[in-house]
Amino acid sequence: MQSEITREFIDQIEDAIERRDTEFILSNMEEMYAVDITTVLYELNTEQSKYVMDVLPSDVGAQILSDLDSDVRTNFLKNFTTEEIARYINEMDSDDAVDLLNEQPVQRKEEIIALLEDQEHVADIIDLLHYDEDCAGGLMAKELIKVNINWRVGQCIEEIRRQAEDVEKVYAIYVVDDRDKLVGRLGMKTLILTNDNTPISEVYEPDVISIESYKDEQEVATVMQKYDLDAIPVVNIQGRLLGRITIDDVIDVIQEQAELSRQLMTGITENIEEDDSVFRLSRARLPWLMVGMVGGLLGARFIGLFEGDIAIIPALAMFTPLITATGGNVGIQSSSIIIQTLANKTIMFDNFTSRIIKVLLVAIINGLVMSGLVLGFNVLFGVELTLSIVVAVALFSVVLLSSFMGTVTPMILDKYGVNPAVAAGPFITTANDLLGLGVYFMVAHMLLTL
Amino acid sequence: MQSEITREFIDQIEDAIERRDTEFILSNMEEMYAVDITTVLYELNTEQSKYVMDVLPSDVGAQILSDLDSDVRTNFLKNFTTEEIARYINEMDSDDAVDLLNEQPVQRKEEIIALLEDQEHVADIIDLLHYDEDCAGGLMAKELIKVNINWRVGQCIEEIRRQAEDVEKVYAIYVVDDRDKLVGRLGMKTLILTNDNTPISEVYEPDVISIESYKDEQEVATVMQKYDLDAIPVVNIQGRLLGRITIDDVIDVIQEQAELSRQLMTGITENIEEDDSVFRLSRARLPWLMVGMVGGLLGARFIGLFEGDIAIIPALAMFTPLITATGGNVGIQSSSIIIQTLANKTIMFDNFTSRIIKVLLVAIINGLVMSGLVLGFNVLFGVELTLSIVVAVALFSVVLLSSFMGTVTPMILDKYGVNPAVAAGPFITTANDLLGLGVYFMVAHMLLTL
Repeated sequence: MQSEITREFIDQIEDAIERRDTEFILSNMEEMYAVDITTVLYELNTEQSKYVMDVLPSDVGAQILSDLDSDVRTNFLKNFTTEEIARYINEMDSDDAVDLLNEQPVQRKEEIIALLEDQEHVADIIDLLHYDEDCAGGLMAKELIKVNINWRVGQCIEEIRRQAEDVEKVYAIYVVDDRDKLVGRLGMKTLILTNDNTPISEVYEPDVISIESYKDEQEVATVMQKYDLDAIPVVNIQGRLLGRITIDDVIDVIQEQAELSRQLMTGITENIEEDDSVFRLSRARLPWLMVGMVGGLLGARFIGLFEGDIAIIPALAMFTPLITATGGNVGIQSSSIIIQTLANKTIMFDNFTSRIIKVLLVAIINGLVMSGLVLGFNVLFGVELTLSIVVAVALFSVVLLSSFMGTVTPMILDKYGVNPAVAAGPFITTANDLLGLGVYFMVAHMLLTL
Repeated sequence: MQSEITREFIDQIEDAIERRDTEFILSNMEEMYAVDITTVLYELNTEQSKYVMDVLPSDVGAQILSDLDSDVRTNFLKNFTTEEIARYINEMDSDDAVDLLNEQPVQRKEEIIALLEDQEHVADIIDLLHYDEDCAGGLMAKELIKVNINWRVGQCIEEIRRQAEDVEKVYAIYVVDDRDKLVGRLGMKTLILTNDNTPISEVYEPDVISIESYKDEQEVATVMQKYDLDAIPVVNIQGRLLGRITIDDVIDVIQEQAELSRQLMTGITENIEEDDSVFRLSRARLPWLMVGMVGGLLGARFIGLFEGDIAIIPALAMFTPLITATGGNVGIQSSSIIIQTLANKTIMFDNFTSRIIKVLLVAIINGLVMSGLVLGFNVLFGVELTLSIVVAVALFSVVLLSSFMGTVTPMILDKYGVNPAVAAGPFITTANDLLGLGVYFMVAHMLLTL
């Protein structure tokens, strides 16, 4: 049952916890989806949440634990004994079990593994512990249905019956040869529509997209998305079937990637969330603020060099915010467009020169429009003509320069394997600010000393 | 076959097109996935691409057209006759067909529909044309497998056999009552493991998550992601089954959303891509640049008010870039964190006051660290003490104010249904710049006239 979780419901649950009314909690929660129960737990304190977990059946608890954010889970599990954790892990898919175990201190991890019951499950988990979190091997689960190419359809159905308990959702049936090498797949539809006596070799689909276990999670996401797959088999370098990755895990990767890019753009160095500690939030934000600060101080020194010009026309200083803001905006727009292109990779053999020419054309149009407007505005409002011209020329130069920098920097970063979203972050923004100031005062100096 | 597309391969295809060698093209491309062929077409010019499309079977062409970006497709299809387009649409799923038709001029759309062969397909398409693109109805396809709750498993298998040709991928079988109301679902696994004579009513899963056709696509994405669904049935307000949405369409929604947020943050008003025309790129970028420009001009007027103070300490002007840059950086960091929280919606009944207190605590720490450093730096480098104190106090105030504004603005926007990512865009950034300037010169004025 999909549930709308209300403040009232939370209050009722809290009351029930208070009076240790396990029956009320069970009868109200056992029909709920695990993910909705998780939402409720987020509203309770640790002690209350632990109580609810103790009341719920361990398969539900296992799902809840799988749903939790890694940080939250690590903290929450400090309140559980190793026996309790082992009981949950017995109910988890191997990929979720490994994620949880990897968050535990080494000794505790060993203790929990020693307490697990099902030896096949333990073997799967130990196998998965070898893989790096960020690669295909680290995303995969061992639970899958595989059949031998020499079997018949009837045997295949028997095998599904045998494995059905472990495999929550059958996306596809993988066909392997005698040496466990992946040779194809069998659709559920084919299985349903085919006679039990048909040899699998006659009906299987030999064309199957797989991914090697060492490939990066980003590549897994790209391949699954490109070919619209809901599950992808993972193989080793010899093509032996190791596990499978399902699309829900990959959606998480896609979203994390989007969040990471945004954080890079906004200059936050760690993967933080609003409910992290004040200290952690400060620490994650300070480094990039420092970069901006040093830039600002350098800017101050730089403006100091032109104190002579400012003394001649004090109003020169008035327009520095206009210049730096425009440079920043143009730079970030340019970066955003090129970052998007680099992320999509639809255009492959693109011509660098023609791309830059286009960027500069757009910059010239926008620069002319803005300079013209600023010139008109200044003349209209009685700003001195020389100063007005200085500002307009400087603005135009800044738009051109920022467009160029904003486009080229992400391309260079991407070429050297750095996430191009960094270019939209404070480091480059600060550099752009300084460049803008430089151009402004240089143009001003030149025109004023003519 | 997964293909690595090389420059060399593109050249060979171009040569083959030149000498009208259809055999070479067919033999090299018929084993490729449609999405890989699409990548090749992106490297060819329109005329060459059209030639390849004519050579390929129409079911492959239909997949290629479904894969193309909307803009590219609209332009490309101008080179096709209505008969040709109708031939492709015959091979498409109803949702892709409708997307394509909606991009055509009304008259051409009618002409194409009139040319379609399969009347059931036409009925599905006309039905889907009613729905708004951005709602569940606009995302769904009509192709699905539904069975009556009063049937037996054997009949169900017959039905799948009958519909198998139309439904490319069976995610689940939907169970309806005599009035076509959705009452549950039947897993493929259950179907395989159950005897043909079993009544469906005994083995079906009555618990099915569905979504109403009028719901926003964002909500579809949220629900499917939350409950880890690969397909969701769409119902009307009476619960009648209308269609289904598959996860691949929803991944596109998630990614578009991420891209849109980034564009809002960077102040680009239209959904543009690098290969759009120079004019379009300029137009999409100018409005926000104007906002920044007006802000800069207002800033100039504002600084003008304090010309008296600047006359007393000309060096006052030197530190404006530091102040505005820091205000901007702090504001955008704060917005980014709160936008992320608002997007995840894991915390529901959050306490507004405690959240603001936390934001201010972080701001106080960061503000103190930065002001302290700037003060030390200025004193060290011989900046006059009064000015150094003014800058430090102003910087601290700006960090506090920008943190507050950067946090509160997205929350208010979200409350009124505006995408909070707008807050990280130029409009608010500009407002922050002005606020920063205001605080700086006010603090300076107060401290200097003490």
